[in-house]
Amino acid sequence: MRVVESFFLSKSRFEGFSDAVLAIAATLLVLGFHLPTSIATQSEAEQTRALIGIWPQYLVYFTSFATIGIMWLNHHAQFRYIQKITYGMAIANLFLLLLICFLPFPTEVLASFGITRPAAVYYGLTLCGIAIGYAVLHIQLLAAHPHLPQKIDPWTFLGAILYPVSTAIAYFSPIGGIIAYVLIALYYMLPQNVARSPLKP
Amino acid sequence: MRVVESFFLSKSRFEGFSDAVLAIAATLLVLGFHLPTSIATQSEAEQTRALIGIWPQYLVYFTSFATIGIMWLNHHAQFRYIQKITYGMAIANLFLLLLICFLPFPTEVLASFGITRPAAVYYGLTLCGIAIGYAVLHIQLLAAHPHLPQKIDPWTFLGAILYPVSTAIAYFSPIGGIIAYVLIALYYMLPQNVARSPLKP
Amino acid sequence: MRVVESFFLSKSRFEGFSDAVLAIAATLLVLGFHLPTSIATQSEAEQTRALIGIWPQYLVYFTSFATIGIMWLNHHAQFRYIQKITYGMAIANLFLLLLICFLPFPTEVLASFGITRPAAVYYGLTLCGIAIGYAVLHIQLLAAHPHLPQKIDPWTFLGAILYPVSTAIAYFSPIGGIIAYVLIALYYMLPQNVARSPLKP
Amino acid sequence: MRVVESFFLSKSRFEGFSDAVLAIAATLLVLGFHLPTSIATQSEAEQTRALIGIWPQYLVYFTSFATIGIMWLNHHAQFRYIQKITYGMAIANLFLLLLICFLPFPTEVLASFGITRPAAVYYGLTLCGIAIGYAVLHIQLLAAHPHLPQKIDPWTFLGAILYPVSTAIAYFSPIGGIIAYVLIALYYMLPQNVARSPLKP
Repeated sequence: MRVVESFFLSKSRFEGFSDAVLAIAATLLVLGFHLPTSIATQSEAEQTRALIGIWPQYLVYFTSFATIGIMWLNHHAQFRYIQKITYGMAIANLFLLLLICFLPFPTEVLASFGITRPAAVYYGLTLCGIAIGYAVLHIQLLAAHPHLPQKIDPWTFLGAILYPVSTAIAYFSPIGGIIAYVLIALYYMLPQNVARSPLKP
Repeated sequence: MRVVESFFLSKSRFEGFSDAVLAIAATLLVLGFHLPTSIATQSEAEQTRALIGIWPQYLVYFTSFATIGIMWLNHHAQFRYIQKITYGMAIANLFLLLLICFLPFPTEVLASFGITRPAAVYYGLTLCGIAIGYAVLHIQLLAAHPHLPQKIDPWTFLGAILYPVSTAIAYFSPIGGIIAYVLIALYYMLPQNVARSPLKP
Repeated sequence: MRVVESFFLSKSRFEGFSDAVLAIAATLLVLGFHLPTSIATQSEAEQTRALIGIWPQYLVYFTSFATIGIMWLNHHAQFRYIQKITYGMAIANLFLLLLICFLPFPTEVLASFGITRPAAVYYGLTLCGIAIGYAVLHIQLLAAHPHLPQKIDPWTFLGAILYPVSTAIAYFSPIGGIIAYVLIALYYMLPQNVARSPLKP
Repeated sequence: MRVVESFFLSKSRFEGFSDAVLAIAATLLVLGFHLPTSIATQSEAEQTRALIGIWPQYLVYFTSFATIGIMWLNHHAQFRYIQKITYGMAIANLFLLLLICFLPFPTEVLASFGITRPAAVYYGLTLCGIAIGYAVLHIQLLAAHPHLPQKIDPWTFLGAILYPVSTAIAYFSPIGGIIAYVLIALYYMLPQNVARSPLKP
């Protein structure tokens, strides 16, 4: 298409904007922490119990932060050998950022509901959305470079399988689903899985 | 004017600041999500209904996020061939950013009021303000380059017509207005409408 | 001092960090908006009145946003001809950023108290603090360049006079103080007052 | 390891992301300020007392902001002579940012609990975590440059001693602990302690 060909977005501003959005989404996660109200009037023992009692929130905070961190590392790797940003990449990237920016809400829902089935499934569906958004961006990158050698990267599309499975687990066992989300985050942080480029140099 | 001539702002810092503000405004939108209070004590079925029942908030979140995303793409296109930032551009840009940074509040008002007439019109008026701010910045850009060939860009000023019309629709039908806002956002994301430069290379 | 001489901070990372902090502080101002609670259950006429009735919040939002915008423009101008960041500049800059980052709180206090004497004076004292912080940074810049020709810039230090006077006005007339803060912001946005470098090129 | 060797993250995007996260964490601290509720209906004298009465919050705000500021200065110094980001640095850095991004929550806990033992110890434990995260990143840097001359930097590891001691003080005297945290922040801001590179140029 003629119009798409003439579309040009500088890579540095594209990456800068993406990094800023990812950094802010990661930092906003802390606003999801909730303590039982009117705790200031309680005894010191009750205050201590409250700070320990929110342990599921620590777990979810770690998972959400790790997910955004991994997304940032992979985003960086994806664009390593990209010279030109196409219209398709720009729109797919905005769609992915929209989903990542939404992550603090399900994180907060899990914090305020506790680990109930609706909260755990809702969180998992958001991760599924992010995985799909990431795969769509991946496809845009490959489509824009048809003549370059391409690594068929199984890991990218693996996310589109692992997250739905984990969400299904969360439906039957909320805490099991949360553990699955944590394990996926840890799995993606392993050196052989992180920051792989879809294009050969 | 002598003073204006001597004004100089580096383009990279100007763009970096604008991108950061746009990125943060987009990310803060998630804070507008509201669940009915004391939901933690409700049954799982009620929790599920609550998460589905806030569907208008998802629609408004999408619209606000898409509006800021489009604004970022167009902002980038506007300054593609600009070498020098003038005083007029700097002030017009701050005015535009002030309006965009305000967007999370009408987004939250729509979330907490529901789709009522005041909330839908209030949101539309904010979009009108952003469209006007964008047109003012556009005029500053053209005014600073009187000797360069200029594309008379109908799209930029179209926004100053489409948003007031949609706000008028919202006055008579709040949900109709919301749908109009969504359609404008989608329209501006079409490849032939996005990221057009007002100056020929 | 030997240690200070060996201190080196890259100008680009110094400016990038400052810009990010200023951009975030500007964007967080929107979180200060407050509507009377349980407004969702009110009639449309009451909702409309509520959105108009918070007009002092719009005024304060404008003033705070304009103050941060001016601070950004002047910060940029200050460092235009600076090549090397000294320890004194880095500490003075962090101190200034600490005060600017605090601005959303007095903005929110004015929004929740209304324009009362304590709220208006509290806001003014914060602006005084920012003006002092800016002057201290200015002195650090001049001190680090003793051999360069320096413009004695009356505007920079004028802020350290205008803000205390406005705060005093706010003590006797809260709304008078607010108007004074708005006028100072507008005054600093005039082309002959904005973005002046303390060092000659 | 083969995989780790091939890992590559551009230093500029690595630093840009870290700076953005630090800037946002610093700016979010202001959201921790809390005034007693329904203060809008109180007399002006009571409003004034409320604004003065939250003095411990000012102290904690200063300490948290200074801690993040110092972390930024030292982060900058650490990477001054680093050319290549390894997998270990990237993961250690994300872990450190996760802990720093958490700081606004203990800051808010101290603001809402007041200076009680649980709140002061909780805040101290977070600072301990940050100090450990920083030391781990430091070790990653040294490990990636085994053949370069290295300054054994006592200050970096001193934090891993000072913060646990201060947290212990907070257990016996909450206010004593807070004063210790403030003193450590001031100590690290001294010119001979700030922004030291672990690698010789």
